[in-house]
Amino acid sequence: MKKVLPLVLLAILGFPAAASAQAAVTPETVMQSVDMVWVMIAAFLVFFMHAGFAMVETGFTRSKNALNILMKNFMTLSIASVLYFMVGYGFMFGTSGGGIIGIDGFFLSGQEDQIGFFVFQAVFAATCATIISGAVAERMKLSSYLLLTVVMTGLIYPVVGHWVWGGGWLSELGFVDFAGSTVVHLTGALGAVVTVMLLGPRIGKYSGKTVNVIQGHNIPMGALGVFILWFGWFGFNGGSTLAADPSLVPKVIATTLLSASTAVIGSALYSYFKYNRIDASLTLNGALAGLVGITAGTANVSLIGAIFIGLIAGVILVEAVQFFDRIVRIDDPVGAIAVHGICGIWGTLAVGLFSVDGGLFYGGGVKLLSIQALGVLAVIAWTMASSAAVVFTLKKTIGIRVSRQEEISGLDFAEHGSTAYESTKSIFNENYDPSSRDFGVGLLHRLDSLDSTTETNTKDHKTAQ
Amino acid sequence: MKKVLPLVLLAILGFPAAASAQAAVTPETVMQSVDMVWVMIAAFLVFFMHAGFAMVETGFTRSKNALNILMKNFMTLSIASVLYFMVGYGFMFGTSGGGIIGIDGFFLSGQEDQIGFFVFQAVFAATCATIISGAVAERMKLSSYLLLTVVMTGLIYPVVGHWVWGGGWLSELGFVDFAGSTVVHLTGALGAVVTVMLLGPRIGKYSGKTVNVIQGHNIPMGALGVFILWFGWFGFNGGSTLAADPSLVPKVIATTLLSASTAVIGSALYSYFKYNRIDASLTLNGALAGLVGITAGTANVSLIGAIFIGLIAGVILVEAVQFFDRIVRIDDPVGAIAVHGICGIWGTLAVGLFSVDGGLFYGGGVKLLSIQALGVLAVIAWTMASSAAVVFTLKKTIGIRVSRQEEISGLDFAEHGSTAYESTKSIFNENYDPSSRDFGVGLLHRLDSLDSTTETNTKDHKTAQ
Amino acid sequence: MKKVLPLVLLAILGFPAAASAQAAVTPETVMQSVDMVWVMIAAFLVFFMHAGFAMVETGFTRSKNALNILMKNFMTLSIASVLYFMVGYGFMFGTSGGGIIGIDGFFLSGQEDQIGFFVFQAVFAATCATIISGAVAERMKLSSYLLLTVVMTGLIYPVVGHWVWGGGWLSELGFVDFAGSTVVHLTGALGAVVTVMLLGPRIGKYSGKTVNVIQGHNIPMGALGVFILWFGWFGFNGGSTLAADPSLVPKVIATTLLSASTAVIGSALYSYFKYNRIDASLTLNGALAGLVGITAGTANVSLIGAIFIGLIAGVILVEAVQFFDRIVRIDDPVGAIAVHGICGIWGTLAVGLFSVDGGLFYGGGVKLLSIQALGVLAVIAWTMASSAAVVFTLKKTIGIRVSRQEEISGLDFAEHGSTAYESTKSIFNENYDPSSRDFGVGLLHRLDSLDSTTETNTKDHKTAQ
Repeated sequence: MKKVLPLVLLAILGFPAAASAQAAVTPETVMQSVDMVWVMIAAFLVFFMHAGFAMVETGFTRSKNALNILMKNFMTLSIASVLYFMVGYGFMFGTSGGGIIGIDGFFLSGQEDQIGFFVFQAVFAATCATIISGAVAERMKLSSYLLLTVVMTGLIYPVVGHWVWGGGWLSELGFVDFAGSTVVHLTGALGAVVTVMLLGPRIGKYSGKTVNVIQGHNIPMGALGVFILWFGWFGFNGGSTLAADPSLVPKVIATTLLSASTAVIGSALYSYFKYNRIDASLTLNGALAGLVGITAGTANVSLIGAIFIGLIAGVILVEAVQFFDRIVRIDDPVGAIAVHGICGIWGTLAVGLFSVDGGLFYGGGVKLLSIQALGVLAVIAWTMASSAAVVFTLKKTIGIRVSRQEEISGLDFAEHGSTAYESTKSIFNENYDPSSRDFGVGLLHRLDSLDSTTETNTKDHKTAQ
Repeated sequence: MKKVLPLVLLAILGFPAAASAQAAVTPETVMQSVDMVWVMIAAFLVFFMHAGFAMVETGFTRSKNALNILMKNFMTLSIASVLYFMVGYGFMFGTSGGGIIGIDGFFLSGQEDQIGFFVFQAVFAATCATIISGAVAERMKLSSYLLLTVVMTGLIYPVVGHWVWGGGWLSELGFVDFAGSTVVHLTGALGAVVTVMLLGPRIGKYSGKTVNVIQGHNIPMGALGVFILWFGWFGFNGGSTLAADPSLVPKVIATTLLSASTAVIGSALYSYFKYNRIDASLTLNGALAGLVGITAGTANVSLIGAIFIGLIAGVILVEAVQFFDRIVRIDDPVGAIAVHGICGIWGTLAVGLFSVDGGLFYGGGVKLLSIQALGVLAVIAWTMASSAAVVFTLKKTIGIRVSRQEEISGLDFAEHGSTAYESTKSIFNENYDPSSRDFGVGLLHRLDSLDSTTETNTKDHKTAQ
Repeated sequence: MKKVLPLVLLAILGFPAAASAQAAVTPETVMQSVDMVWVMIAAFLVFFMHAGFAMVETGFTRSKNALNILMKNFMTLSIASVLYFMVGYGFMFGTSGGGIIGIDGFFLSGQEDQIGFFVFQAVFAATCATIISGAVAERMKLSSYLLLTVVMTGLIYPVVGHWVWGGGWLSELGFVDFAGSTVVHLTGALGAVVTVMLLGPRIGKYSGKTVNVIQGHNIPMGALGVFILWFGWFGFNGGSTLAADPSLVPKVIATTLLSASTAVIGSALYSYFKYNRIDASLTLNGALAGLVGITAGTANVSLIGAIFIGLIAGVILVEAVQFFDRIVRIDDPVGAIAVHGICGIWGTLAVGLFSVDGGLFYGGGVKLLSIQALGVLAVIAWTMASSAAVVFTLKKTIGIRVSRQEEISGLDFAEHGSTAYESTKSIFNENYDPSSRDFGVGLLHRLDSLDSTTETNTKDHKTAQ
């Protein structure tokens, strides 16, 4: 720092040669610095989205599984960063093997000057993988989940990324997915739907004809998560420009803001007309629906176009959540499949409709729309097939679901031997007995209660019908 | 992205022509990129302030109204963004109609190159409107609140903005409000005080001579909100420079940091001397008081000046909260009127005292101080009159307050048919009965309890006196 | 703003002369703007780390002390900012008095062009001081804590900073601590260990041979804090470059991301092998361990080196927490001493092993390693001696620990006369009686319960043994 301090001093005082560590300062070298600053800050924001996912998934589920969900989020981010460095980046941006997959650049070998770009892409890979953690919450084994994450971030996602962003066959066709409605969000949602189908619903979710609402334990925490995701999304979409271009970045940010805003309004009003009340969780998911919806076309549609894309995404979200929850009976605790999957498809197709350059509504005919549809179908085929192979194998070997007793007692206790919150006694500031938190003691209490627990549970379901 | 990837590659490798998507890279074009990056990031931070407002307002009120407050915050931000795009921006920055209001630029027509500036201003408009949501918390009808938000962001705020920032008559006079102590914070607080006066206090707040303390349900969440607001304020004040000027931005950030810091110290010590304890909620509000206080003069006062402005703001806050709560008996659950109103006025007048360019303490006489006072009075007149007209109309038509039963049962249940937290049973990890969350069932339970509820409530008040 | 608006308009439209408020726009002046933007944003992120510390410390402790911990965090940040402006900066970066301490630059006199650098350094100083608040949580007197903070930020930390970053003797020797594993984290942890030793453990932590687990009351809140700290750390390490250098910044961010990621994996797996479960709080602290560990060498080690530094830090963290908690019996509620102290030492020594320029593993021999070790020892000697003198004096005068009754009733009630959460009754949306929150009433209830409280507490300990 001693050597650096004078630099900043000189820099601020304006001594040219020292303005940065570079030999000569030209407009081009300065522009590199600006682009680097922009992409780095965007990467920070995308990183922070993981705090948003963690808060949404934890808040929208039950407190007895909070630690488990948090661990899944932290481990996903950590595993993704390392694996993407080792192999993911190479598969995604390496020299193409026939447009299907990259075959070099592992460990960034020969890509040392792409470290900033790697960081930005690494947090993207983690985003795709973490989408699954919400859908499988409250009943998937941590070990199996982590192994799935390894394959998602190490292979499944990078292949899709190579097709669209790595010079692969879809990009050759002219498929447009600027920031990842399909590459990131649909891919993650497909991994989720496959896993949930093989995993089954949570105990008590569906009892006979009754579809029970398993409410989250802390919606304000979930709402904070939505705000954090929206905040981070400005980096997600804005950073995908990869350059601080004044003619492009502000437009991307504006379409992102407007689409999310109209989606919130759309979900709120539609839930009001449909249920005669503004539903909080649907409105919160509406914001995410509008963000996923604009991600593919953020740079290609007009501000007015963004307003319509978001408004429609907000309405689609409400119907999609109901469809999976009530009709298909796929138990997705946080609505991840509706938000990232259905709205990811909508956003990708919307480019074919609203793109000012080739969109159907702008006189571009159906060519772009068809390419967009083809891309969606291709990603669905690859991701469902590959993730199904992985999850099915896991199911047949180490198993993917915790035992009934573990699920009822909560994964926090079963997998982490602890709880996310202190006992009622102390949370409201009465005297607190630390020894009662001693793990051994807690364990006994817990085991005793399991059987009776199960019975009560069944009984309650009866009464509910 | 395929086309973009090489760009970043070249950019980082240093190939001049490709450093960005621009034709020729000159110091001027690069400076545009730097200014754009600065204003965009500042806009992200101001956007994130809405998460701060949501956490403060939710944490400082009761859990039975948490969903309602969160919905108000999300809807305010969403409605403001869209309305400001449609009409607000035009009224505020359009060509002036006699210094009173802008008359063009709606839907950014003819302002396409101002998209970045629009985004920054849009999140400002939302900030002004959302200040009201905290003051009216726990008893205002969502529908009436949203209609008020429409008028605030679509007309009332833009008019004030035009006067001061849009080339209107106050700016012609030399009125100084660099980042909005008056334009944003006082305007929002005035809308709040008018609404609260027409709305009345919450049930149980004032019983006879007794002034009851209705404590918030989650102060740590509120504290996080204050941290987020402080964090975002660096963008609020720093971005108002609209250019990445090394001779101005660091000073703005330093005055913001120091004023908030001394305000925290001021509120803490003053509450200690006055109540013999450091009051947590007054100290947290103290940080906001110092931030509101420095907002008008952040670019015009010295670091020492900022220290005094904040210290005084911290003391004023404590007295102002007591004044409204105990003397005037205006029930403002989160102290928004004291923070944004009183400290907004203080900050605006403080420019007339501490400005190094024309301030009374710097030999500038009373000229600037008088102009500042005139501006405050003009904004008070316009905002109170216009918002009173709106709220009064709403009160006489659709009504502005929920029923007594709805207020007692909580707005979350009354307006959203749900609760923000899961039942005691499960939050502490015992067996959880999902069917008991089934809306229909919950509804019955709730309705049964309402009458007895009301009685208990009255009884309890008696015993408390 | 009226005068500024045209500027941005012209800037975005591309009118050269107006691109910023500067007379002439040259590559050098633009580079100054870029460096300034980078350092300012980094400062915002470091500021935000204080929200992270507050959430971690509050979540990992009991609800009855939440307000007190929050107040400590806000006051630390505020006091540090002001004191660092008044004297700290001068002691740290002033002209050296024999390599030991700076002797000018107080109140930034003669350093007006260093305001941006001051802001960045001020939030660093606050970070060092706030580390103590977690370790002393739940039993230290607020007043004594604040006085310690004054000395830490005003003198103890600045002296260490001068040695390493201010041109002092350690920097002369070639000691490498790029972003502060030793300067910030070890220094803070040393102040913590000294204070905790003079303070003693919390009531009920150690009863005879039994080591009780005093679980935090809200781990999800703590997890959010860890995410915020990780997010802010990109500014902590990235901003320490003090210039937007594309050849350095991306590498710093990548090593930070990878080290934290492998540390999470390391702590998770090691806790799994050791306790047969992935421990949530150890894994969360693992992320911080990896961040502290990479801070010293973030700019000097390779990506592969960062992966190993983090992995080892994650394992060390688990052992260090156990060592202090079970062997040495130092009661550190949040594990701050293990995270910032032990991993701070590891990170500093790791530079001597992994630095690509002089590291043992890169053929540099033991010279750098020895210098790193010497620096660690010197900082240990100075910080422990000076902080011990301060804390011992406080203990002998005003006292450093609250009374047994106050500790049992909780510091929120004892020092702030309030509680962080509302009563059970209302948090789950049943009828709520505001008057019961009336402070006077609450006070009586509380006082009544204290004695019985104490007895229960003792009894419970017996049963636990």
